[in-house]
Amino acid sequence: MTKELSQKVIDIKPSGIRKFFDLVSEMRDVISLGVGEPDFDTPWHIRDEGIYALEKGKTFYTSNSGLKELRQEIVNYIKRTQNIEYNPQNEVIVTVGGSEAIDIGLRALCNDGDEVIIPQPSYVSYEPCTILANAKPHIINLKPENDFRLTPKDIINAITDKTKLLILPYPNNPTGAIMSKKDLEAIAQIIIEKDIYVMSDEIYSELTYSGKHVSIASIDGMKERTILINGFSKSYAMTGWRLGYALAPKEIIKQMTKIHQFAIMCAPTTSQYAAVEALKNCDSEIEKMRTAYNQRRRYLLNAFKEMGLECFEPYGAFYVFPCIKKFGMTSEEFAQKLLEEEKVAAIPGNAFGESGEGYLRISYAYSLENLKKAMERLKRFVSKLA
Amino acid sequence: MTKELSQKVIDIKPSGIRKFFDLVSEMRDVISLGVGEPDFDTPWHIRDEGIYALEKGKTFYTSNSGLKELRQEIVNYIKRTQNIEYNPQNEVIVTVGGSEAIDIGLRALCNDGDEVIIPQPSYVSYEPCTILANAKPHIINLKPENDFRLTPKDIINAITDKTKLLILPYPNNPTGAIMSKKDLEAIAQIIIEKDIYVMSDEIYSELTYSGKHVSIASIDGMKERTILINGFSKSYAMTGWRLGYALAPKEIIKQMTKIHQFAIMCAPTTSQYAAVEALKNCDSEIEKMRTAYNQRRRYLLNAFKEMGLECFEPYGAFYVFPCIKKFGMTSEEFAQKLLEEEKVAAIPGNAFGESGEGYLRISYAYSLENLKKAMERLKRFVSKLA
Repeated sequence: MTKELSQKVIDIKPSGIRKFFDLVSEMRDVISLGVGEPDFDTPWHIRDEGIYALEKGKTFYTSNSGLKELRQEIVNYIKRTQNIEYNPQNEVIVTVGGSEAIDIGLRALCNDGDEVIIPQPSYVSYEPCTILANAKPHIINLKPENDFRLTPKDIINAITDKTKLLILPYPNNPTGAIMSKKDLEAIAQIIIEKDIYVMSDEIYSELTYSGKHVSIASIDGMKERTILINGFSKSYAMTGWRLGYALAPKEIIKQMTKIHQFAIMCAPTTSQYAAVEALKNCDSEIEKMRTAYNQRRRYLLNAFKEMGLECFEPYGAFYVFPCIKKFGMTSEEFAQKLLEEEKVAAIPGNAFGESGEGYLRISYAYSLENLKKAMERLKRFVSKLA
Repeated sequence: MTKELSQKVIDIKPSGIRKFFDLVSEMRDVISLGVGEPDFDTPWHIRDEGIYALEKGKTFYTSNSGLKELRQEIVNYIKRTQNIEYNPQNEVIVTVGGSEAIDIGLRALCNDGDEVIIPQPSYVSYEPCTILANAKPHIINLKPENDFRLTPKDIINAITDKTKLLILPYPNNPTGAIMSKKDLEAIAQIIIEKDIYVMSDEIYSELTYSGKHVSIASIDGMKERTILINGFSKSYAMTGWRLGYALAPKEIIKQMTKIHQFAIMCAPTTSQYAAVEALKNCDSEIEKMRTAYNQRRRYLLNAFKEMGLECFEPYGAFYVFPCIKKFGMTSEEFAQKLLEEEKVAAIPGNAFGESGEGYLRISYAYSLENLKKAMERLKRFVSKLA
């Protein structure tokens, strides 16, 4: 071996979640609260639509930007839920999960050296994808005293004349935090004034437990500067189908489609047919899953309270983010010890950014039965420490 | 709208194929010979395996690098067909078609300003993906007198001290050219001496008509500097499933997997289960399709001869690449006129690089019946011109 590979890529650390899972995979009888995917199978009639597409031999490429019918349904969905109008012809692109939309959105927006504001703790892809797009991450450390919401002051302090965009990750993974309409209006004003773009990752938009999710794109003056990212993985329990989308002004979608055309071609065809069904006829299924998640969420918050574990009440996604600072260990030490002593796997908060240090991400995309077992173990662990 | 988008992306032209299709889509009764995908449905038992996976609720993420069982089958396949040994643990990654493998391979290899040698005419993604990876394309214009094969002299003239890799696109889209073992050995010597990498795009490897395909990775000293890209789209008629893979030294796969992990997560799960079946039990199906393609290929070459259209005999993929220079028109003029006057759609050769000027890409991934109709029309068109 021979000439050096991309230094930029070498310097990127693999996901801290992955590292932890490698540890878990070597152990037996572990109760995992680690994974960021629904424990539900994809609802049957969505799967059935995928099966039907396969039976009918719909195994060919779709157009680069996705099936026309699917783009229409996506646009209908956003109109129905957010009252925002998009043109299915040129303001939407169907992608390989939300992940690809994040990657090609950043590549389409950023020139070398542009700054991207990334609030953390947040999903592990934003920072590496920013670096891969030859841009510079500017991290905002979200504060527990704000329930991990993003404040106008946070943004004002972060914006420079090199800022190209803000990534807005709500409902948030890993904290479960959400932003209300009022919260969003306060930051929108600054974003418009400073003339920057927003990449709003709304993949958990259907999983909120205190009223409906509000998209920042629905606020006056924001649609024209927002890439709204969403997808089917979380809300519809369709992770393995790899299907997401982006909605944005046509100039942006045009550039994203160019990258997508050359680097991906099109999203998987079977998944696209199934997703049409998901958007048309799945509201009650989502409601069922949301109700289950909410029950588990409240169970966990209660369990934490009982064992004296500090945790702000999160109203979105399927994560809780308890604070473990009082035990005098780092997140990694705590998580590793919990894994070794009680065989419960939870992700150290610092996997989602430095400001996650002192916290633990616990997913409640697990059955109540499993969660109960895990909480018994956690309780025992915590009481030993206290 | 607001700050400028990525200038690099804006400067990339959309695919010339796409441009032509936009034209076609506005017309009626056109016989298209334009598309680069098999006309066959995916073989039934592969689809059946996908259906089974959906029925069983296998709708979750797989590991980033792909299902263990699939990686094992890929490695078995390469051992069986090329006698090359790869480690399924760390020398293979399952991707979203060959397309993603090209994109993340280039991103993993290239530092800013590295040069990538791209022989043309060739697939439309290599050049834009190189630019997107912040590297510089160095184009080799392949010559008709070499039957569009790559020669040692071509490479020697192209290599500079900034050269990071050579893209090797055989069996070739759009020319149908292949490289023999002897051809490959001659260039391998130079590649090793000059210490560069090779990205060998072997997506059409199962579609050759004069003996088995030989991978450059099978030549002594080449495995350790080759990213071998292949997939299921062409050989197994699985375009819409979006499934491909890369085999490479573990240092390269490690970096590619990092990009893949953040930008894509994993390839579609249903497709991965189906692909296991494809690799295990599909050799006879491939043989059937190959026989059909070969029949069509010979039919077209004969038809060209009869109408006095010069065309070298291509032994790979499913394209023929007749020369239309004698008619005194550019490829685009010829293709457009053919479309308008005879309603036959073929892709202008210059869509695949400047050196494709004066040629036409005609796909024979169409039924013999359609090809016959198209050839009648082409004959009439050509005789009017003569």
